[in-house]
Amino acid sequence: MAAVASPARELTQNPLQKTWEPYDNGLPAGHSAQRGVCMTNCPTLIVMVGLPARGKTYISKKLTRYLNWIGVPTKEFNVGQYRRDLVKKYKSFEFFLPDNEEGLKIRKQCALAALNDVRQYLSEENGHVAVSFLLQMFPYKTVCVCWIIHSRSHSSISSVNQVFDATNTTRERRETIYKFGEENGYKTFFVESVCVDPEVIAANIVQVKLGSPDYVDCSNDEATEDFMKRIECYKNSYETLDETLDKDLSYIKIMDVGRSYLVNRVMDHIQSRIVYYLMNIHVTPRSIYLCRHGESELNLKGRIGGDPGLSVRGKEFAKSLAQFINEQNIKDLKVWTSQMKRTIQTAEALGVPYEQWKVLNEIDAGVCEEMTYEEIQENYPLEFALRDQDKYRYRYPKGESYEDLVQRLEPVIMELERQENVLVICHQAVMRCLLAYFLDKPAEQLPYLKCPLHTVLKLTPVAYGCKVESIFLNVEAVNTHRDKPENVDISRPPEDALVTVPAHH
Amino acid sequence: MAAVASPARELTQNPLQKTWEPYDNGLPAGHSAQRGVCMTNCPTLIVMVGLPARGKTYISKKLTRYLNWIGVPTKEFNVGQYRRDLVKKYKSFEFFLPDNEEGLKIRKQCALAALNDVRQYLSEENGHVAVSFLLQMFPYKTVCVCWIIHSRSHSSISSVNQVFDATNTTRERRETIYKFGEENGYKTFFVESVCVDPEVIAANIVQVKLGSPDYVDCSNDEATEDFMKRIECYKNSYETLDETLDKDLSYIKIMDVGRSYLVNRVMDHIQSRIVYYLMNIHVTPRSIYLCRHGESELNLKGRIGGDPGLSVRGKEFAKSLAQFINEQNIKDLKVWTSQMKRTIQTAEALGVPYEQWKVLNEIDAGVCEEMTYEEIQENYPLEFALRDQDKYRYRYPKGESYEDLVQRLEPVIMELERQENVLVICHQAVMRCLLAYFLDKPAEQLPYLKCPLHTVLKLTPVAYGCKVESIFLNVEAVNTHRDKPENVDISRPPEDALVTVPAHH
Repeated sequence: MAAVASPARELTQNPLQKTWEPYDNGLPAGHSAQRGVCMTNCPTLIVMVGLPARGKTYISKKLTRYLNWIGVPTKEFNVGQYRRDLVKKYKSFEFFLPDNEEGLKIRKQCALAALNDVRQYLSEENGHVAVSFLLQMFPYKTVCVCWIIHSRSHSSISSVNQVFDATNTTRERRETIYKFGEENGYKTFFVESVCVDPEVIAANIVQVKLGSPDYVDCSNDEATEDFMKRIECYKNSYETLDETLDKDLSYIKIMDVGRSYLVNRVMDHIQSRIVYYLMNIHVTPRSIYLCRHGESELNLKGRIGGDPGLSVRGKEFAKSLAQFINEQNIKDLKVWTSQMKRTIQTAEALGVPYEQWKVLNEIDAGVCEEMTYEEIQENYPLEFALRDQDKYRYRYPKGESYEDLVQRLEPVIMELERQENVLVICHQAVMRCLLAYFLDKPAEQLPYLKCPLHTVLKLTPVAYGCKVESIFLNVEAVNTHRDKPENVDISRPPEDALVTVPAHH
Repeated sequence: MAAVASPARELTQNPLQKTWEPYDNGLPAGHSAQRGVCMTNCPTLIVMVGLPARGKTYISKKLTRYLNWIGVPTKEFNVGQYRRDLVKKYKSFEFFLPDNEEGLKIRKQCALAALNDVRQYLSEENGHVAVSFLLQMFPYKTVCVCWIIHSRSHSSISSVNQVFDATNTTRERRETIYKFGEENGYKTFFVESVCVDPEVIAANIVQVKLGSPDYVDCSNDEATEDFMKRIECYKNSYETLDETLDKDLSYIKIMDVGRSYLVNRVMDHIQSRIVYYLMNIHVTPRSIYLCRHGESELNLKGRIGGDPGLSVRGKEFAKSLAQFINEQNIKDLKVWTSQMKRTIQTAEALGVPYEQWKVLNEIDAGVCEEMTYEEIQENYPLEFALRDQDKYRYRYPKGESYEDLVQRLEPVIMELERQENVLVICHQAVMRCLLAYFLDKPAEQLPYLKCPLHTVLKLTPVAYGCKVESIFLNVEAVNTHRDKPENVDISRPPEDALVTVPAHH
């Protein structure tokens, strides 16, 4: 018999997250959801494969950002950066020639250093991160701690034992990194970007490589020429992931920036999520416009939540927004709102079609809905202090946390990745979550991101990140931003709790 | 200027679904979310491609079930069935020989009949289905009405103009169906199943083909032999979807029942969802066990929702469940609960690890939480009647509808598809949604599915459906099932509204 009924343990509600946890003899028995998951909770190494200028850095940065946002702690190791740290001053492509002994030695050192760092990180932080942080973030316990290993080419990182030895095929080298993972108890997932379109490659070089620290002292033409030669250094030995020869590896092969994909042996939940994400992103230039609804009747009163209509100034903002959007002259703009009255009223003023998403609704403040901060402090002083202690993980009684909100918003992010120009008319907490994804802000900062009323944030993807333009539409509104107070102790006096509450009627 | 601010329309809350809708001069102005979506709301033809016994029927039935469940109305057209309807009595594989003139003619008729039915269905029902039903079900307006066209082989359906003409390649025939779609304003997505493992093919023949109406008068050996010859009839002319030659088509190619996938030109949201789903299903034998928490303190009182603990009998059920699960001796059983106390208390008795999912929480009854049905009738008689009128779409004030619940549970279904043996300890409304998915129950029946307390449903996939075993664990519990009353009029007397309320303290 594998399992026997244990003596019934008492359940106690975690005051911060409102989850039920078992207690033995008055002591936490360890969150049940965390038991027995070690087997499936092993880290995943995500290994980028591809010639230079195939978007490996772009993909790995984007994927790292996504995984961190959904609650899977992910760190990027860029072997190219190790090389730059070691060599300091880049001279030319000749460093990468297959017969450059000095270059080979240095690149071997870099790969070794990166792998050692990976091993050290995972052994030191795995327990801590995976148990106390991750499992709360992520409803699925099959989740892994992911560490993105980013290498300049598919071959460099896998070459711990036989770096660039011409008698070894690169397939053998991939086998090496796979074994490194196996020995250390990590799963390995390869992401290859194959690109044959010369225009795409040229665009990538111009967009991201010319700004590289390697080319700080070159003209653009010199840099491009050198970089094209660097690509050539790899081309001869390059072996793409093969359907037959690599049939035992887990991988996704991205062809021509998403025209098609080959997906092999997806082993678990997290690999499946990675594949789905990579199949939904695109590189077509576009902008995403984020804003909140116009000022609401409850905003005026300093009350949170509810489903109020717009104030007079809120309606004015809606008109200004219509004008602004008109002036921007945006191609095929999609407009999304929540299912709350204030965002729909705002969208109505635009006179264009829009879509209502229930998952864009504001954070559910549960028993605190429609209260002022003063009333929350008066009725639930403990709750108010707990929220200030850990605003990201704090769940309102019968309501939601920011952490819950991120999970709820994941389909919105996925669809935003699929779409081109979109205006999202949403809410303060929702906008903070979306913004944190695009700007790669950690969970601790997320609930304090500034998203004032009557202000549009225009996000435009550039190179490895997002350009942000903040446009205040010149209609006054109340401030709804409450900073974290200094005193977050549960025994604090009310005036300490209320010191950062914005002014209201 | 593309868009101008329209005169502000008034918003009115839909009493059933609690959504805000614009009104012009006191009349519904058409749900804004439905305007301008015609372009992206075009139907999708999903065309199965593959030799006989490659699981086309399995995939199309499963995909149809999934799409209908998430709110994308989907209908299957099986050309094989058209053939059976026309020919009545199947003789032998010779019908499928490439030089059988009579067979060719009949199969051409069938393909034509199916395509005509598709066209008629879509022209008659598209408006109705897509607008009033679909858009409410599905938060994304990019959604399409999907109609699965299922054909015995990749070639038969596409052969409207040149059915099985040996001088035309099958690629040309795929082009034909693609053009049929284009002319009618449908998008076409091909799903090919390629399978070279003889064991898998043999297993499929035994599992589903021997029971086919075609072989009702044969021995199994005779049927297998005939069917193998049928496969041969197609093999010569069969052309798989090709990375280069078919690069302009949208398709997923499934290799060896999910070992790998080739995905090409995913064009929209719904194609992306189809791909994700197909990449997550598997055919490994397993069982899914569904049950509710043990009887709760609020169940005893006839109160809905809340976060109560188990009653004495509820705790007894938890022990019986532990014994039952033990006796079943299930390999690698995963146990999932909601984040509510009653499901966690039930799982605790098992003495095995379990995972808590917030999305498995019971339907949020909003302002009716913790009320008896009598109290709901007394305080919200209109709401109570509206719920009885359309229980699936009805949303509690500040709460959820069954429709909302299905959207929330989609990630659970996806992960259930990925997993093998799982026990889900959940709640009445949640269990109804999960059950409806596995048993292919329509939205109208879903909220009335019988999911009594202290009863485990064991679901085991067989052929094209699910075997259900219902196991009452012999611990008494209150009845919580309320049937739809005959009188659902908003002016009904309370006794009519309460006639089906189950007995309670």
